[in-house]
Amino acid sequence: MKKRVVLALGGNALQKNGEATAEAQKAVAAKVGEVIAELADKYEIIVAHGNGPQVGNILIHEEAAATEKAPAMPLETAVAMSQGQIGYWLTQAIDNAFIKKGRKAKVATVVSQVIVDKKDPAFRNPTKPIGQFYTEKEANALAKEKGWVVKEDSGRGWRRVVASPKPVDIVEKSAIVDLVNDGAIVIAVGGGGIPVYRTKITKKLKGIDAVIDKDYAAERLAELTKADIFVSVTAVPNAYINFGLPNQEKLEGVTVKEAEHYKKYGYFKAGSMLPKVEAAIAFAKKGGLGIITDIDNLKDALAEKSGTRLRLK
Amino acid sequence: MKKRVVLALGGNALQKNGEATAEAQKAVAAKVGEVIAELADKYEIIVAHGNGPQVGNILIHEEAAATEKAPAMPLETAVAMSQGQIGYWLTQAIDNAFIKKGRKAKVATVVSQVIVDKKDPAFRNPTKPIGQFYTEKEANALAKEKGWVVKEDSGRGWRRVVASPKPVDIVEKSAIVDLVNDGAIVIAVGGGGIPVYRTKITKKLKGIDAVIDKDYAAERLAELTKADIFVSVTAVPNAYINFGLPNQEKLEGVTVKEAEHYKKYGYFKAGSMLPKVEAAIAFAKKGGLGIITDIDNLKDALAEKSGTRLRLK
Repeated sequence: MKKRVVLALGGNALQKNGEATAEAQKAVAAKVGEVIAELADKYEIIVAHGNGPQVGNILIHEEAAATEKAPAMPLETAVAMSQGQIGYWLTQAIDNAFIKKGRKAKVATVVSQVIVDKKDPAFRNPTKPIGQFYTEKEANALAKEKGWVVKEDSGRGWRRVVASPKPVDIVEKSAIVDLVNDGAIVIAVGGGGIPVYRTKITKKLKGIDAVIDKDYAAERLAELTKADIFVSVTAVPNAYINFGLPNQEKLEGVTVKEAEHYKKYGYFKAGSMLPKVEAAIAFAKKGGLGIITDIDNLKDALAEKSGTRLRLK
Repeated sequence: MKKRVVLALGGNALQKNGEATAEAQKAVAAKVGEVIAELADKYEIIVAHGNGPQVGNILIHEEAAATEKAPAMPLETAVAMSQGQIGYWLTQAIDNAFIKKGRKAKVATVVSQVIVDKKDPAFRNPTKPIGQFYTEKEANALAKEKGWVVKEDSGRGWRRVVASPKPVDIVEKSAIVDLVNDGAIVIAVGGGGIPVYRTKITKKLKGIDAVIDKDYAAERLAELTKADIFVSVTAVPNAYINFGLPNQEKLEGVTVKEAEHYKKYGYFKAGSMLPKVEAAIAFAKKGGLGIITDIDNLKDALAEKSGTRLRLK
């Protein structure tokens, strides 16, 4: 029986040198598609992916060119748009990698809503900058008009900031599992998922402007789909301690206890390696194998010959 | 056993009075969701939908606010974005209609590529206007720069026109069938599908800027998923002969032969009722039931008490 693997592809897995045209991003996706097509012989594959640069550009276009007749879409809907966009590119890339091998792929991108808790403390302290830069005056006007929280962003201007709450559940989980059981490669929870919450009285789903970390969402997906392995596919082959220093040391086989020790001592950078390590720890705690590596080492890391591999013990 | 129904929702099924904010469109989708949730007890449901106004606004934003760092997405990718957008709204609407009934829905939007033939005669005569209006000078410059075909649009300015080729195949058909077999309500081929073609030598899939008619794409989906019933859900309860005239006559039970007779005599307007009647004829010819009706009459039409119903004999 094939092992089930959830891959969380970083934004850099789709943009090289910040080249943001559709053609450039499709070219990067093509390489990812070939790796996934090769792995699919041995593993059941579910692909989650980031959408930072893509949803950023969608929001910039939506906001800059909005008119009364063609109003700007809110962030939650923009995430859905980026899922269609990136999901299409990845689906086609995997399709084509199979065609190259003279075979037929079954691939599907499922538009995914991820439930967050409206009481998540993240909503009291929005930190994630999104969309275009504004002057302080413009930013304050928008804050007043639209209820945005705005902040000065490292000397480059003012931006809207939104909350980054934890993923609680995935609305489409059962459809995703059905597809994987039927032999499909599934692309899901793109950009961490479309953030939705359950309204208080009716319990209906409602979109909310927020950004869910794609590593946390993918880890949740790995738990909910009973995957064997969760991989955060990033720009570096391993997680490191003393990263970038002369005494840098790469982590290979690591226990949860060791990883938590390194985390406690601040070895992993917030918003960068930290969420990946936290996601891998969470998955290893549930008894699975959590991996951090890059696309070039992915195959070897799954064979436990490369990458950083976290286990409970 | 439940009968399998493919619904092709018109653009008007999502925008009321041209109200294009996400909130307004979600409110319209909520009503569609309630109808679908009710039908789902009796039928297996696959939902296709138009995207005319939505992809139009995406293109307007993409083109008007494009920069080197945030380049405009091409039409084919914009269709994918609109599938994510509208698919999310419809999925959530159906989810919420089930929640209202105290039940749990299984709904999934599958990002869908639809294969067209690059030799389709439509590519030699592009007729479908898309995106924003330009002056003649701007339009000609864009035509030169981007290889667009541009035309004057009924005195309102110049626009890009693209081909509207026939759908040949649906890349994700097998995943869509799996999901329906597993009890899911599936949203697919949004906007007629992302237009792709097979390249000559490698046979790889490649996106192409075109617009596929959503009724033709939905009919193709109905055939490929072996549906029993295809419904074009539009703004009027029936197809008519002498539509809008004093001797207007609504069509109820109709044979393919009768429908083809009316079509031959020009009773159905191109770009409006004609593609719906043609799609219903095509489906009836394959032995299925082809229906044309509006959302209010949908339930009765499926019970053959309302709407225009086409059968082979």
